[in-house]
Amino acid sequence: MSGPHVVALGGGHGLAASLSALRHVSESITAIVTVADNGGSSGRLREEFGVLPPGDLRMALSALCADSDWGHQWRDVLQHRFSGDGPLGGHALGNLLIVALWDLDPEPVHGLQLVGRLLNAYGRVLPMAAVPLEIAASVSLDPEQPDQRTVVTGQHQVARTSGLIHSVALLPEDPPAHPDALAALGECDWIVLGPGSWFTSVLPHLLVPKLREALLHSRARRLLTLNMEMHTKETRGFSAVRHIESLREHAEGLRLDVVLADPSIVDDESALRRAVEDLGANLMIQHVSTHLAPGIHDPLRLAAAYRDIFGG
Amino acid sequence: MSGPHVVALGGGHGLAASLSALRHVSESITAIVTVADNGGSSGRLREEFGVLPPGDLRMALSALCADSDWGHQWRDVLQHRFSGDGPLGGHALGNLLIVALWDLDPEPVHGLQLVGRLLNAYGRVLPMAAVPLEIAASVSLDPEQPDQRTVVTGQHQVARTSGLIHSVALLPEDPPAHPDALAALGECDWIVLGPGSWFTSVLPHLLVPKLREALLHSRARRLLTLNMEMHTKETRGFSAVRHIESLREHAEGLRLDVVLADPSIVDDESALRRAVEDLGANLMIQHVSTHLAPGIHDPLRLAAAYRDIFGG
Repeated sequence: MSGPHVVALGGGHGLAASLSALRHVSESITAIVTVADNGGSSGRLREEFGVLPPGDLRMALSALCADSDWGHQWRDVLQHRFSGDGPLGGHALGNLLIVALWDLDPEPVHGLQLVGRLLNAYGRVLPMAAVPLEIAASVSLDPEQPDQRTVVTGQHQVARTSGLIHSVALLPEDPPAHPDALAALGECDWIVLGPGSWFTSVLPHLLVPKLREALLHSRARRLLTLNMEMHTKETRGFSAVRHIESLREHAEGLRLDVVLADPSIVDDESALRRAVEDLGANLMIQHVSTHLAPGIHDPLRLAAAYRDIFGG
Repeated sequence: MSGPHVVALGGGHGLAASLSALRHVSESITAIVTVADNGGSSGRLREEFGVLPPGDLRMALSALCADSDWGHQWRDVLQHRFSGDGPLGGHALGNLLIVALWDLDPEPVHGLQLVGRLLNAYGRVLPMAAVPLEIAASVSLDPEQPDQRTVVTGQHQVARTSGLIHSVALLPEDPPAHPDALAALGECDWIVLGPGSWFTSVLPHLLVPKLREALLHSRARRLLTLNMEMHTKETRGFSAVRHIESLREHAEGLRLDVVLADPSIVDDESALRRAVEDLGANLMIQHVSTHLAPGIHDPLRLAAAYRDIFGG
C-alpha cells in the first residue's frame, strides 16, 4: 500500500474518525486541524501558556498512533484525562505532552513533528493557523424572531449555544496559515473535508483566507464527507442539503468532486443530488455507519468508501 | 551482552548515574526507588492525587530510556519541566505521564511497567514501598550543642536542613515493601547501593524492614558505590569513613562485598580500608569521575568499574 497523498481538514471526533479510516488506504496523510478550542483542558492551557489549543491536535495524533498494542496503549494514554478537580483534573495527558514540546521549541510544527516521531505516528498533524483563534457565530436566540442576530464568541460557547447558528467568523479575521499546510494542499492528490462539528470543526478552515485560497486553487480532488448525525446542538433542524448550503455560504467559489453520504441521512435524494451537483460534485451514497453507536462512522466502512472514491 | 542480573537501590541523580552506567554492562536491571519525596512537582502530585511521589521513579525511567535518538528525545521530554508558576509550572512531564497511568490503573507497578513498555526502556523500575513515605531526621541545629536533637520531617526539608543530620527514620515505620522488589533482591546476582543523597536516597531502603531483611539474606553480592561529593547539605563534614559508619548505624548486620571509591574522595586510605573491611568488603579505588562537572560520576568509567567488579 502506498495510496494517494491525502490532506484531511477538520477537528475533534469527526477528523479522528476520518483519519482512522484514511490510515487503511493511504501512507501519506496530513491532518490540518482547527486551533480555536477555548474550553476544558485546551482552554486552560491556552490561558496558562498562551499556546495553540492542543486538544484537536492531540485527537488527530491519537488517531494516527501505530496500529499495534504499543500504539493503542499510547493512544489510550494520550486521550486519558486526569481525575478530580485539582490543578491537573480534566487535563488530557496528550495535551500536556504537546505543550511540553512547545515549551522546549516554540515553533508549533516542530513540537508536533517530534510528538509524531515519539509516538511512531502515521502521517503528520499541522495546525490550521499559526496563532490561537476564536470562533464568533451569528446566532438567533429567539425562534420567533429569526432575523434578530446575536454574536456568540468562543468555540466552546458556539458549540453549546441554545440559539440557531447562521454563520461563523474567525478572530482574528486573517490569521496566518502555516506554510506547511499550504504546501500540503498544493501537493496532495485528495483533500478531505468533514465529517465533524459543522460550524466549529468543518467550516473554520474555509475562513482562513490563505487556506481557502490554497484549497480553491489546488489541483487535488476534493471530497466532502457528510456527518452521520444531522441534528446536533450546532445544526438543529439542518438537513443534508442545508449542511451543503452553509458550506457554500462560507466558501464562495468552492468546487468539490465527491460528496459522501450515508443512506440514513438522505431524506430527499434528488434535492441533495442537485445541491451536490451545484458544487460540481458527484453524490456517493454508501453505508458508512457502525452498528455499535448511533451517529458514528465505521472506520473500515469509511475506509472502503474512501478507497472506492480515490480509486474511481 | 547479557551480563549479571543487577538490582540498583537509590533515588534521584545518584541512582540515575548508576543506571546510566549499568546499562552498559547488564541487560537485566531492576531499580528499586525511594518514594519519600515531598517537594516540588512530586509533592504537589502526592497532595493532588494521594499517589506515590513519581519524581525519583521518573529519573530512573529516564536513565533507562532506549539508547537511540528516539530514546534520548523521550528522556529529554520526560525530564522537561513546564515553565512559569501557573497550575502546571514546575511539573516534569514524566511525572505527569506516570501519574496518568496510575490514574488508569492504581497498582503502581502496573503503571510503571506500562511506562517502561511505552518508552521501550531497559530494565524495570519498582518503588521501594507500596505507600508514600515521609523521612524524619534527627538533627542538631546548633554546632555548639551537638547533643541537642530536633526532628526534621519531610525529605525536602531534611535535604535542605541547616543542621547536622545524625540519623533518619521512615514514617510509617514499617511500610509494606513491594513483593516484586523483594523477589528481585532474592533472584539477582548483584545488589548496588549508592551513589546518591546519603540520608534521603541511599539509607532509606535499609529502613524498610522487609527490604532490609531481603537485602541481608539475599545470596547476591553487594556493592556500595560511594559519592563523588562528600560535603553536601546532608553530609557536611562527612569523610568517606563517616559515610560508611552511618550506613552501618542504619543497617545492623549488613555485609558488603565491594566498596567502590574514586581516588579524589579518599583522604585516609588505611582508615577507609578498615571501615570497608569491617563490613566484610574489599575496597576498590577507581577513577570514576568525569572532567565535565565536579561531583559527578562518568557513566562509562563507572560502567568499566562495574564490569571489572562483576567479572572479578
